[in-house]
Amino acid sequence: MTASRLAIGVDLGGTRLRAALVAEDGSILRRTETATLSASGADAVLEQIETLARQVARAAGARPVCGLGLCAPGPLDTEAGKALSTPTIAGFTDLPLRTLLAGRVPWPVLLENDAIAATYGEWRFGAGRGSNNLVYVTISTGIGGGAVVDGRLLHGRKGMATHFGHMIIDPDGPVCSCGNRGCWEAFASGSALDRQARKSGYDNAENLFAAARTGDSTAIEIISTAANLLGVGLVNLLHLYSPEIMILGGGLAHGFDRLAGGIQDCIESTAMPPFRDVPVVAAGLAGNSGLIGIAAMVFDRQGNVS
Amino acid sequence: MTASRLAIGVDLGGTRLRAALVAEDGSILRRTETATLSASGADAVLEQIETLARQVARAAGARPVCGLGLCAPGPLDTEAGKALSTPTIAGFTDLPLRTLLAGRVPWPVLLENDAIAATYGEWRFGAGRGSNNLVYVTISTGIGGGAVVDGRLLHGRKGMATHFGHMIIDPDGPVCSCGNRGCWEAFASGSALDRQARKSGYDNAENLFAAARTGDSTAIEIISTAANLLGVGLVNLLHLYSPEIMILGGGLAHGFDRLAGGIQDCIESTAMPPFRDVPVVAAGLAGNSGLIGIAAMVFDRQGNVS
Repeated sequence: MTASRLAIGVDLGGTRLRAALVAEDGSILRRTETATLSASGADAVLEQIETLARQVARAAGARPVCGLGLCAPGPLDTEAGKALSTPTIAGFTDLPLRTLLAGRVPWPVLLENDAIAATYGEWRFGAGRGSNNLVYVTISTGIGGGAVVDGRLLHGRKGMATHFGHMIIDPDGPVCSCGNRGCWEAFASGSALDRQARKSGYDNAENLFAAARTGDSTAIEIISTAANLLGVGLVNLLHLYSPEIMILGGGLAHGFDRLAGGIQDCIESTAMPPFRDVPVVAAGLAGNSGLIGIAAMVFDRQGNVS
Repeated sequence: MTASRLAIGVDLGGTRLRAALVAEDGSILRRTETATLSASGADAVLEQIETLARQVARAAGARPVCGLGLCAPGPLDTEAGKALSTPTIAGFTDLPLRTLLAGRVPWPVLLENDAIAATYGEWRFGAGRGSNNLVYVTISTGIGGGAVVDGRLLHGRKGMATHFGHMIIDPDGPVCSCGNRGCWEAFASGSALDRQARKSGYDNAENLFAAARTGDSTAIEIISTAANLLGVGLVNLLHLYSPEIMILGGGLAHGFDRLAGGIQDCIESTAMPPFRDVPVVAAGLAGNSGLIGIAAMVFDRQGNVS
């Protein structure tokens, strides 16, 4: 029996920082998380990453760890290993993240966009296993994602491809965090649905979904509109990437049961006929798509390493 | 000296059918074209393709021809070698185009979407030479295109990726030929600009560009709006594929000098900052991108062959 290799996955978010020791079959041997010190500057966050990584690495015992994969919110230049301008974490502007982290830990460091890492996780171990063409969309504060086309994960120049959230679907739509009007995420992200829920007297989106499950007609209508706005963007992605399957993850996935019908209706009524049979499914690895995906990228030597 | 290999490229459009004998360096040895018998049924069109292909093949003399590449308007299933439902050519519905043509000619046959073939031509021999990441957009009756990401031409499931024209950019926009509202091509194709031109008293788009070049302020304003609508879609493509360069071809390219400024303004004001430096250029092979591209795909053994 050959012992499975081990890698450390770190998923850095504006709110939570998660780390895990992951085996080559995608299983998590140890996992830990903490609140990101997102207002304390880059050094404090790098210190946190190092601490959590060393902590989960101890579960490896005497077995070697072959690398550390860090995934973080964009825009990153993953070719150069840099955070360009992460709005949710102070000090993450033009920051050579990969080199700085590699100077702190004894492992080679891989840096990847969080949504692209999650796409890889879903492809290798989640809902997209065995597919050659898939689109993964994560719907939380914003909307992000990734795509596998012809059996390859897309990166693009500087690793900045598949920024789905900033696809404009209506130039007269609401103002987005990026400054434009009518980006998909300004309409259909978890934050957009939270706002919509509060405007109608619900605490948040989760509350809204709970109300819909009891038959509340106002909640059902708001969700139907949201599903349709998600559908518009997903139909675009069908025409743009021609996937075999579309996978939805992120915070809003807790409402997938209530959204799926409306999304499918939108696809069946507006996609061009040869694209209408593509299924939309929930992510298979729940909150761990990024952690498992970035570790899998370390094993498979995807991307650039410091 | 080794003699260059030769291939036949055929570009089937709803209006014109073109064929060329192409050498491995992208040069055209012989070229011919005719009006497509688009109302006469599949057999008549296949007969035309065979006739034109044999005609240009004669220029090869004693040298062997290594294959015939046919590119045609979508949606095609290029994995299965089928035309699914070409609206502009009668009888091109669920038609096994590749096998039928292979039964008529002595060469292996490759079938590709016309815009994807043109993308390949621009990448190998045109404005995109040397790039690893590019987006090509063809703007004529409709809008089509292709993308090279991470050094590979995208195909997707059934070869149906990069149907850019049917990206919805405004759900309340004009009705598109596909039945949806607000597709990019309903706003910004050559036909859309022709309509707009006629509405304001110009014969067509070409006329409109000519008037703008003499300083006609109405024409300048219409073109400025068109450039902005093109820009919205191009900004989306920047965020979706992260190219190093975007190349515009097709019939509307004759107005590129008048459109380029407005497009660049739109990109500089609405793309996310790390995407703003990407140049937009005119196609390098003019009307021959598809012919040269499909022949190059034969040489490079891209795609499925009958």
